[in-house]
Order: sequence, then C-alpha cells, then structure tokens
Amino acid sequence: MDNFSPMPRPEVHEAFLKEVVELMFKNVVFTTRRDKVLLWQTPEQLEEHFDFQLKQTGETHDKLIGILKNTIKFSVKTGHPYFINQLFSGLDPYGLAAQWLTDSLNASVYTYEVAPVFTLMEKQVIKEVCRMIGPQWEDGLFCPGGSFANGIAVNLARFRRYPDVKSHGASHLPRLIVLASEECHYSIYKFAAFLGIGENNVCRVLTDDIGRIVPSDMEKKIAENIEQGAVPIMAVATLGTTVRGAFDPINEIAEICKKHNMWLHIDAAWGGGLIFSQKHRAKLNGIERANSLVVNPHKLLAVPQQCSLLLVKDPKILLECYSRGAEYLFQKDKHYDRSYDLGDKYLQCGRKCDVFKFWFMWKAKGSSGFANHIDTLMDVAEYFEQQVNNRPEFLLVSERQYMNVCFWYLPRYLRSKTNILENGSQLHKVAPQIRAFMIKCGSVMLGYQPLKGLPNFFRFVSQNSALTRTDVDFILDHIQEIGDALFQ
Amino acid sequence: MDNFSPMPRPEVHEAFLKEVVELMFKNVVFTTRRDKVLLWQTPEQLEEHFDFQLKQTGETHDKLIGILKNTIKFSVKTGHPYFINQLFSGLDPYGLAAQWLTDSLNASVYTYEVAPVFTLMEKQVIKEVCRMIGPQWEDGLFCPGGSFANGIAVNLARFRRYPDVKSHGASHLPRLIVLASEECHYSIYKFAAFLGIGENNVCRVLTDDIGRIVPSDMEKKIAENIEQGAVPIMAVATLGTTVRGAFDPINEIAEICKKHNMWLHIDAAWGGGLIFSQKHRAKLNGIERANSLVVNPHKLLAVPQQCSLLLVKDPKILLECYSRGAEYLFQKDKHYDRSYDLGDKYLQCGRKCDVFKFWFMWKAKGSSGFANHIDTLMDVAEYFEQQVNNRPEFLLVSERQYMNVCFWYLPRYLRSKTNILENGSQLHKVAPQIRAFMIKCGSVMLGYQPLKGLPNFFRFVSQNSALTRTDVDFILDHIQEIGDALFQ
Repeated sequence: MDNFSPMPRPEVHEAFLKEVVELMFKNVVFTTRRDKVLLWQTPEQLEEHFDFQLKQTGETHDKLIGILKNTIKFSVKTGHPYFINQLFSGLDPYGLAAQWLTDSLNASVYTYEVAPVFTLMEKQVIKEVCRMIGPQWEDGLFCPGGSFANGIAVNLARFRRYPDVKSHGASHLPRLIVLASEECHYSIYKFAAFLGIGENNVCRVLTDDIGRIVPSDMEKKIAENIEQGAVPIMAVATLGTTVRGAFDPINEIAEICKKHNMWLHIDAAWGGGLIFSQKHRAKLNGIERANSLVVNPHKLLAVPQQCSLLLVKDPKILLECYSRGAEYLFQKDKHYDRSYDLGDKYLQCGRKCDVFKFWFMWKAKGSSGFANHIDTLMDVAEYFEQQVNNRPEFLLVSERQYMNVCFWYLPRYLRSKTNILENGSQLHKVAPQIRAFMIKCGSVMLGYQPLKGLPNFFRFVSQNSALTRTDVDFILDHIQEIGDALFQ
Repeated sequence: MDNFSPMPRPEVHEAFLKEVVELMFKNVVFTTRRDKVLLWQTPEQLEEHFDFQLKQTGETHDKLIGILKNTIKFSVKTGHPYFINQLFSGLDPYGLAAQWLTDSLNASVYTYEVAPVFTLMEKQVIKEVCRMIGPQWEDGLFCPGGSFANGIAVNLARFRRYPDVKSHGASHLPRLIVLASEECHYSIYKFAAFLGIGENNVCRVLTDDIGRIVPSDMEKKIAENIEQGAVPIMAVATLGTTVRGAFDPINEIAEICKKHNMWLHIDAAWGGGLIFSQKHRAKLNGIERANSLVVNPHKLLAVPQQCSLLLVKDPKILLECYSRGAEYLFQKDKHYDRSYDLGDKYLQCGRKCDVFKFWFMWKAKGSSGFANHIDTLMDVAEYFEQQVNNRPEFLLVSERQYMNVCFWYLPRYLRSKTNILENGSQLHKVAPQIRAFMIKCGSVMLGYQPLKGLPNFFRFVSQNSALTRTDVDFILDHIQEIGDALFQ
C-alpha cells in the first residue's frame, strides 16, 4: 500500500480526513470568547514542545492527528474577537467554506479551460467592483496582497509615461518621482526600490494632525523635484492609512495630478471596502478620478487571506503593460475565445484562486450583508473612541476618521499632567509592557507602534463585526487593570 | 439573527459547513478514473447555466449548497489522473488536510507573534531544503509562485552589483543584461520589464537540439554585450524547462558566471523537487554553485497551490535588499527576539501561509515518500516515451530528459513520409483539433504548443504518481483513436 501518491483513496484517507475535519470543527472554527486568543510560547519554548523535525520516513495517522492538534493549540486564533492586532481578523463561515472547496479543486487561474468557473467569477467580481467605483472603470487583477497590487500600479504609472520601459528598461530615463503621504504603506517604498525607481525617489508629503496629506506640500514638492530635473510621475493617495486610518483628500490630489499629468493611484487596501456601505461611502468620494485603485477584501470585508484587487480605469493598459503571450499557455489556435484566458495580463503565471471566497461571501450575504458588517464595525469603533475620551485613564492620539482608534493608556502619575507628551520617553515604554502582559496571558492581542515622533500608542482596529460594546468595555477595563498593576 | 458577522456560530453555521464538507468528500476529494476530467462549456454556455450575478440580498443555505454543487460540476478536476495539462496535478490528501487547517487558522506570516508555529515551520523547511542544496546555503523565502520568485532573484542580482539601486533607482545605471535560455520561462522577461531592466535586455542564449543552453553561445553574447557598453549581471540556468523539461549545463554556466562576476540564478521551479530522489538527484549536480535557486514544491512534489521557494546562498542579502523596518509590525521594543519576525525580508507584507501544507506532507510521507513519488513518475514518463517510440502513429519531438515527453500524433498520410516536418503546416493543426475533441468529451486534458518553429506538439507531463502504465496505454490509444477518426 503506497502512501506517497497524491490521489486520495477512500480506504486509506477517508477516515483520516474526516478526523481532521472533526478536529477543525471542535477546536478552531467555533472559537468563543472563553478561549484564549493565543497560548504564548517563546520560539525556544515552542521548539521544545513541538516536533518541527523533518525525517526520512513518514508518520502514522495517529501521530499526524496529534501534530494537527498541536498546530492548533499553539497557533493564534485570528478569528477570536479579541484578536485586534492587524488589518485582518474574524473568520467568515462562507469564506471558509469557499476556501475549503478552492483547496479541494486546486486550480490555477490562468486559462479559461483550466479554471472556467473561477475565470467567470473573476470577471464578474471585477465588473461589479468597477461599477461601484465609477463609470469607465473596467478592468482589474487579483493580486497576492496589497503590497504587490501597489507595486503593479507604480509600474503602470511609469509605463503610461514611458511605454518603452517595458522593452528597454529604465536606465535611459530621468529620475522619476512617486509622491505619497509620509504615513503611506511601506510597500510603496519597497516596490519603488524593486522597480528600479529607488526608495529615495518616493517623496514624502507632509500630513496634517490627523494624518491626511497636505496638498500644498505636495504642490511644493512637485515644484522642487521638477526644478532638480526629476519627473514626478504619480501620486499615491491613501484611503485608510495603516496606523491612523486617515483618508487623504482625493479631489485636491486629483487636481494636482491633472495639472502635472501625473498618474493617480489610490491605495484603498484598508478603506476601499466602504464602497459597500451607503452610510459611509462618502468617505470615498472622488475615487472615480483615479487611474488605479487597490482594495483588499481580506481587510475590511473579512474575506479570508488573501484577497486583494487592483483596479484600473484604462481597459487596455494591463494587457499592454504585462502581456507576453507565452505560447504554451495562450495558444493562438484555441477552440474558444482567447480573451477569456486572463493570465496574459498578469505578472504572475500560476496563480492561486482568490476570487471564490469573495464571490461566495457576496452571494451568501448580498451587498447588504457587507454593508451591515461595515456599519456595525463603525459603530463599535465610534463607541471605542467615546470610551477612550470618557475615561481619564486613556488619551486619544488623534481624532478617529475610520475604524482605527489610536490611544494611550496613561499611568497614574501622568493623568494629572497638562502636557503629557513632555513625558514621552516614559510613556513610550507603557504600551509594549501592557501588550507583553496581555500576550503572555493570551487574553487580547492589540497592536501598538510609534508614529512621527509620538511615543508608542495602541491601535484598536477590528474587522470582526461580532465584536460588541460589551467587548469594548472589557478590552479597556482589561488594559486599565494591567496598566494600573504595572505602573503604580 | 445576523448573517453578516465573520464569526461562525454553531447554531447557524455548523449544519451548513458540515454539508459543504460532505459535498467535497462525495464529489471532489475522491475523484476516480470513471469521472470526467471536465464537463466542457464555452464561456457563453457557462454564463447561461451558472448564476454568477451578485445581488443586494444574500441567498439561503439551500441555494448556496446548490451553487457549490455547480461550482464543482463545472470545474476542472485537477486531481484526476488524466489532467496532464500543466506543471501541477494531483491532490495530495495530507496537503489538502493542511490547507483546510491553514484556512481555518487564517494566518498571515509576517511576525512570530501572529504565526508562531508557521514561522518555525518556515525556518525548518528552508533550513532542510538549503541543507539538501549544499553547504553555505542558509536563507530563503516563500513566494506566491515561481514567476515572483524569479523576479526576486533578478532584483537580488542587480542589488549585489549596484547596492544603491535600492535607494537611488536604476536611472543612473548602465544597460544591464540578463542571460537566459531561449527556452526559459517567460517570467524572466516579465520581471525584467517590471524591474526596469527591460525585456529586450534579456539576452536569449541558443539551445541545443534537446533544449539545453549552448555555453559557447552564452560566452559569445556576453562579449557582444560588453562591447556594446552593456553590463551582463546574471545568468539564469533552467533545470526543467517548461515545455521540454531540459536541464541546462550548470557547471559550465557557473564557470562563465565566475569569470564575468555574474550572479547565477537557477530556475528549478519544475526540476528542483528532484533533490528528494537519490536515484535522480544527479540531474541537479552543481546547483550548490548558484547564488539563488527557485523550486516550486507545488509542481513536482504535488504540494497544493501555491508553494514556491526562493533560496539564496548569501545569508544577509535578503534582509539587506528588502528590509524597510516598518515600525507598526517590526517594533524595536518587542518582548521576544525580533529575528523571528520573518516579514521584514519579504517584498510582500501580509502573506498567505504556504508552508504548512508542504511541511505536513513531508511529515506524513517522509523524504522517502517524496522520493518514491518522483521515482514512480519518472518510470511512467520513461514508459510513455518508449511507447511513443514503439508506435508508428507517434513521433518524439526530442529526446526526453525528465518528466516531459513531447510528441506528435501523425495522421496516416504522414506516417510513411521520411521528412515529416516538411509538412509542418498540416501537422501544426493536428494537436489542437485532437485536444479540442478530448476536452469536449471531458476524457483527457493534455497540453500542446509550438516551439522554435516546430509545429504544435503534445506535451505529456504528470505530477500525479497514481498514474500507471495502463493509464499511459489508455491515453495513447485514446489520442490515436481520435486522430484516426479526425484525420482519415
């Protein structure tokens, strides 16, 4: 009896796979507030408790089940309501079902013939999302994450200005400039470096006191760069910055782009999901003026990892910029319309199917389900901000614009001070210590970071609409309790 | 009762999820030879039979189950033994179990604290694979596909020669040249364009009659490019080319790279899995001399989509080239050793966990399980080639070196000809027609393509070690039967 061939046989694998499913149902899928978010182990401890070694011979099914149990035991429960650590959280049951099936079908979405259903789903989702952005929007790509999608957009901006960069490279071009908020996502820098533009040529535009680009500073920096002989090719406006959730003023930036013939890219990886909410859609007003836009359904909409969309207005540019026409995949003498072979406009070749989970969640909940999800999240964020403002133990870093609530816990000795930030070096140490404590007891995972010289602060952010006001009270009480004990 | 929050509740979702699982067990996981590989529909037909529309309101569980049934019905069964269309196939039960659990845990592998188990698994797998490559190999990345991994390597080559490209870009650099086989994967061109090197600066090195780089031609082209003022920075050697499965002569290419101070990258996306086979490992002799290497476990090893590794010899270069130190993820005051936060050396930020399925398959089968898998596949490929040679109805395109068997079916009127290729334009139309017939009846999915002016030929290639000699006989009989009927 072979155990190596990749074809499941009922008599060998059915009982095992059913046990795996049972384990998932029992220990992962239905996480509750009574479970810990994580069982913290240092890397050294985990190495001791978990057999990571890979060997010559395989293990029995019993041993493998034990390994899966341990994998679950020591992994973070990102679906837990108190996992409020990243721009993703929650575990959507419909998204999960679709992921399971995606894995069972194990497709690669490059040609219609290999992935017919998923190809048409991709076309449908891109069409619908484009329709929600604005008229003339038509085309897009599924990307393995928002960073990659931003990189694709930066390259489109360069290609539109200098189409021969595709064939001849950038060594004959002038120095190119990408303008972005000083609070933009770091992928803009990483991809500027990767593309041969250079991270120093990402020009940091100043932000105001709540984190939005100051348009006059963008104008000023464009002028300076032009004077130095560089060519500003694009501006990146962020809708929902990573830390503060700020929304850059799109219309003013769009005017600047128009004036200087610059590509306007909108990084709405985090904020873009708002297209589903009638109540909050206005935050995105002006997005239709952009040339490209990134939205990550795996963020606000809680679609499982990863689901990231790059959308473009020009319906031809993706194919022009990325096509290579590989003949072993995109044969010219196919028995169907080759325009359904989406792969040629992608930078990738083989590609995991990321559409199905999103399409299926949309089908299951309807657009209104996503809207309810968003509106609930926003209510909870608003309540969180109110509570921070109402409690003397906490201080808001800056006014909330979105889901992100940035705040400090104040040790007793700071609460009466009038200028708390004068004690910044002390305050800087507070959040990491409280967080380390929470992680060690596995109660709450809540992120912190410094920003623009401000001492470390917490960032509350959730994509799990099962979170309630009671949860908010618990989280703040919990931080306060730990803080009061640690900082007498 | 809300149906929008991304937290599964037993009373609402358990029955539904269990039905989904049952459906997968019944209709996908245990595909047999009696099933069709696909139920062919043109895009227009599929649009008619499948409700792709997205609406304002959600659907009932019953309706959703119907949708899942249709998704399965109209999707290609890539786990079917007669899906021999791509460089991936099969459905590994252990890989599948691990994927299901990966989805349930829904992690993003950038920091240790968010993905402790998966972080240590990544370190373990990279360490083991490096050990199998050679001494001094130490570091690597999981990538969302081989194309992306090749792109990362091209950028590393440029960065090693011109480290300030990261900060200052490529506009002050000379024209850079990447040398690769004229049969290399098209991702080299796509990423040369993307990186600002330019696809025209990928210099096509001639191949011999079985598809291997001719080293003397590489030498010649380096000299020509240098004379023109360009700088050859790297050579790409392919181990297992996409179409013919050719293995470039590494040692000779390594000597050339040494002489010209060029980075040697090995694209072993398809061939690299052979490190597991004692019997066939010798095909990879010399790989330890490279600077970087790509291997896709989702190809030869039949790990589920996607699993792609980029490995490097220099233990510092990934961090030097790609680090940005984003403070909201990689805080300097963490309560554990920050070197376990792998994300900073990645170009991506959020990242799907691709390690677990590979690690778990390795654990389940052991290295010897992968070896058996490979050796079985190679036996079947050898038998396929023999049969092609033994049967007058078929003609081998070029001698097999690996899993790929490239061959023509010959219509009767061509079988007696001495120089068949003089009738190339007729022969060119044969494979597409036979293939279209097989797809329409859903029996076999077998790829074809032209190459270097040769008329369209079939490429047999399988990663499903459940395939037997009897299957080979069936496939060839089947092609012959269709061909004989179509081309009297």
